[in-house]
Amino acid sequence: MSKPLELEDVTGAACCAPLSGPALGEAEAAELAKVFKALSDPVRLRLLNMIASVEGGEACVCDLTGAFDLTAPTISHHLKVLRQAGLIEGERRGTWVYYQVIPDKLTRLSGLFALPALTSA
Amino acid sequence: MSKPLELEDVTGAACCAPLSGPALGEAEAAELAKVFKALSDPVRLRLLNMIASVEGGEACVCDLTGAFDLTAPTISHHLKVLRQAGLIEGERRGTWVYYQVIPDKLTRLSGLFALPALTSA
Repeated sequence: MSKPLELEDVTGAACCAPLSGPALGEAEAAELAKVFKALSDPVRLRLLNMIASVEGGEACVCDLTGAFDLTAPTISHHLKVLRQAGLIEGERRGTWVYYQVIPDKLTRLSGLFALPALTSA
Repeated sequence: MSKPLELEDVTGAACCAPLSGPALGEAEAAELAKVFKALSDPVRLRLLNMIASVEGGEACVCDLTGAFDLTAPTISHHLKVLRQAGLIEGERRGTWVYYQVIPDKLTRLSGLFALPALTSA
């Protein structure tokens, strides 16, 4: 359970197997549950959507904050939760932080819900 | 926000667009957040995994309960949450309830995290 960086590797060992695949261990389930907890908030989902869909792949926190009727600290909190879940990463350049999704994490979540049985049918 | 059945159609209008696609509306984000809240528990994730991976596609609640060091009512509660999130459905036959995943729902969640930009690159 070491945290080498601010980001936790939340998908870890459970990353690549679909739910319809091998048994999910307790530790892996706990890690994945944290990711889904991060996603269980409408504002965070909309933030992730905005970051994932922005042209150029990178969203300035200044643009994200303006889209919600929420204070900057509240938006920052939500972004931090997404970051700690390993879904996005941010880079400060000058005044602002710029966020982008971590494609591998989204792809792993996509794979989690994949139903291989249907593709091989 | 009508609930025609016990199951809510939680993926609804937001079902098919990926997070990297069109803007996610407030209502759709709220519905999806509920699904992820259902998934934000390790026991529920393991239950979903067991149901999704069971041979024959159908899991008896009697088998699910035995796999956890939890009481039957607790397992039942977790199954109810998954059911209300539209992830599984159950059918009572005789003494037991048999559960199966709702493939469309899992596929929609898989699509939510898909990154179309990568597949077209």
